[in-house]
Amino acid sequence: MEWRNSLTDLLQVAYPLMQAPMLHIATPAMVAAVSNAGALGSLPVGGQSPERVRTLIREVKSHTAKPFAVNLFAHPHPGQVDPAQGARMHRVLRLIGEGYQLEWEQPALENLPIFLAQDQIPVLLEEKVPVVSFTFGVLEPQVLDAFRKAGVVTMGTATCLDEALRLQEQGVSAVIAQGTEAGGHRGAFLNPEAPPQIGLAALVRGIVRAVRVPVIAAGGIMDGAGLAAAFALGAQGVQLGSAFLRCPESAAPPAYKAAVATSQDQSTVLTKAFTGRWGRAIRNEFTRQMAPHEALVLPYPVQEVLTRALREKVGPEDVAKVFPLWAGQAAYLARELPASQIVAAVLQEAEAILWPDFQ
Amino acid sequence: MEWRNSLTDLLQVAYPLMQAPMLHIATPAMVAAVSNAGALGSLPVGGQSPERVRTLIREVKSHTAKPFAVNLFAHPHPGQVDPAQGARMHRVLRLIGEGYQLEWEQPALENLPIFLAQDQIPVLLEEKVPVVSFTFGVLEPQVLDAFRKAGVVTMGTATCLDEALRLQEQGVSAVIAQGTEAGGHRGAFLNPEAPPQIGLAALVRGIVRAVRVPVIAAGGIMDGAGLAAAFALGAQGVQLGSAFLRCPESAAPPAYKAAVATSQDQSTVLTKAFTGRWGRAIRNEFTRQMAPHEALVLPYPVQEVLTRALREKVGPEDVAKVFPLWAGQAAYLARELPASQIVAAVLQEAEAILWPDFQ
Repeated sequence: MEWRNSLTDLLQVAYPLMQAPMLHIATPAMVAAVSNAGALGSLPVGGQSPERVRTLIREVKSHTAKPFAVNLFAHPHPGQVDPAQGARMHRVLRLIGEGYQLEWEQPALENLPIFLAQDQIPVLLEEKVPVVSFTFGVLEPQVLDAFRKAGVVTMGTATCLDEALRLQEQGVSAVIAQGTEAGGHRGAFLNPEAPPQIGLAALVRGIVRAVRVPVIAAGGIMDGAGLAAAFALGAQGVQLGSAFLRCPESAAPPAYKAAVATSQDQSTVLTKAFTGRWGRAIRNEFTRQMAPHEALVLPYPVQEVLTRALREKVGPEDVAKVFPLWAGQAAYLARELPASQIVAAVLQEAEAILWPDFQ
Repeated sequence: MEWRNSLTDLLQVAYPLMQAPMLHIATPAMVAAVSNAGALGSLPVGGQSPERVRTLIREVKSHTAKPFAVNLFAHPHPGQVDPAQGARMHRVLRLIGEGYQLEWEQPALENLPIFLAQDQIPVLLEEKVPVVSFTFGVLEPQVLDAFRKAGVVTMGTATCLDEALRLQEQGVSAVIAQGTEAGGHRGAFLNPEAPPQIGLAALVRGIVRAVRVPVIAAGGIMDGAGLAAAFALGAQGVQLGSAFLRCPESAAPPAYKAAVATSQDQSTVLTKAFTGRWGRAIRNEFTRQMAPHEALVLPYPVQEVLTRALREKVGPEDVAKVFPLWAGQAAYLARELPASQIVAAVLQEAEAILWPDFQ
């Protein structure tokens, strides 16, 4: 019985299990709890100011001395928004908000303060974070090079074989293969407007046969059976997101956690209504109201700024109707347990499958 | 090292591996070869006349004494087609056909000879076929009962947990869980117009935890790694379709086999343009030409009758452009080997993963 493999050696962790970087959900407390349990926590910082990134990293460090990852959004700047399209989206959101008796000032669309990965990278280097993962694109080769020279492990996200090959070519240390089952944003970057929707079984099998770096399977993995299945497919590790949604360390509001608990395998939908990028969320009133307006959706992260302003005004009784209830297709199997106990349970279940003779 | 489990006991086969019933592709020779190799071949008979069904079954029997399955399409009669919609589809197909310099008589839409499962079931009982699998719906409880009394094993196809529970409730012996990765028609029946697209990892894990009957995983499984992964998820068996596309026993035309060999994980698309039911096929000229006309597509199997008349006139050089190149998301991993050798290879690969100490 031996969890050690090329990925655990690379990451310097005991177990080849990562917690997915869920923006606005994965708190520093969750990241530290996962890392302290011998797995790898991931701190999401996409879109945050460099100051905020530093604060969050230091908060994680204050709770763990173990390795953890910081996750970046590697997308280009959206440029200026077409004012006519912006006005139309303002109108759509105004109408939706009025349905909840909301009054709020809609953010102006010009000169939004948008923080990109390039703004955050110096902080990551200064803070000597051990692992950097990213999604929505590929970090520049010189950036990957700088991380490599600083001893930082880099991992990119692929939703199809072509993206995995591109990531390897650019020099990442490992590839996260994100199956269509996964909750939250699709990591697609070669064609993000029509992102691949490849199931984990097909995706991982194809990628592990084609790349040399370790592959981490993500999407639909909720327990040790999922971990063991990913290993059978040839993955060297797994990344679990939805499995941690109901943890006490999760910042998901109570109504969000309740929606996850009562969801089903058909509950989710791919939508770009919340942020301007395609992501998987539990269907709710907002996804239904926005469905006819998908063509008007503004680019990431402008759409996100607009919809966030609306939902910040929403009362707790309407949170489940308006919030992005990011969740994977098997999120309904999520357990309401502390993050460390989820890590322990998943490992124990996987051990019983992978090494039955040691039980 | 022990392949025997509840599914092999139920099916009376040596190995918990089934070849998927691929209409127009899986020949009696393929079915018999798979069954003779100790797995379970599946003979597709959806839409065929009772006489043809009998002929096909007898052909299988002439090549094997081992158990095999016969696969039925359990959909309702489409009813009469709206003549205006029919005329529009005739026009669309006429235009597409003219692009290939085709001349052909378009089938009339009234009183098409449509054979349903109910027309074929008496033949299956008379011929004492050992296993009946079905898709697109649920056979009537009295039919399932008649099969049970005759000692016939029944298996239905589910694309979500609700469908699996419905099948179990109606009394099937086993459930085939079809992940979104799968090629060919979606087996969805609760909402076939908007079929679930749940990845195998999420789907199988949820279903095995909820049903008591054996679960067979289907979709994206191309080799022993896929089989071992399905077992880790808790499935008792696997069904492989695309893995057999390139066999000599496959009736796929050479251009189809070539398209599979050069496909990639992003090559497929869900379309109902070929038959009126959603299915996964390699994108080609026909799927692109029909994409703007999805709303005009006629119900299954009327659309199939119309498009078949067109493609029967197509020369070998245009087959890959016009035929439904049904294929799963990992079809590009299909091997060009006799069916029996594919069975043997998959089992051997799986054994090396499941029982490494016995190697």
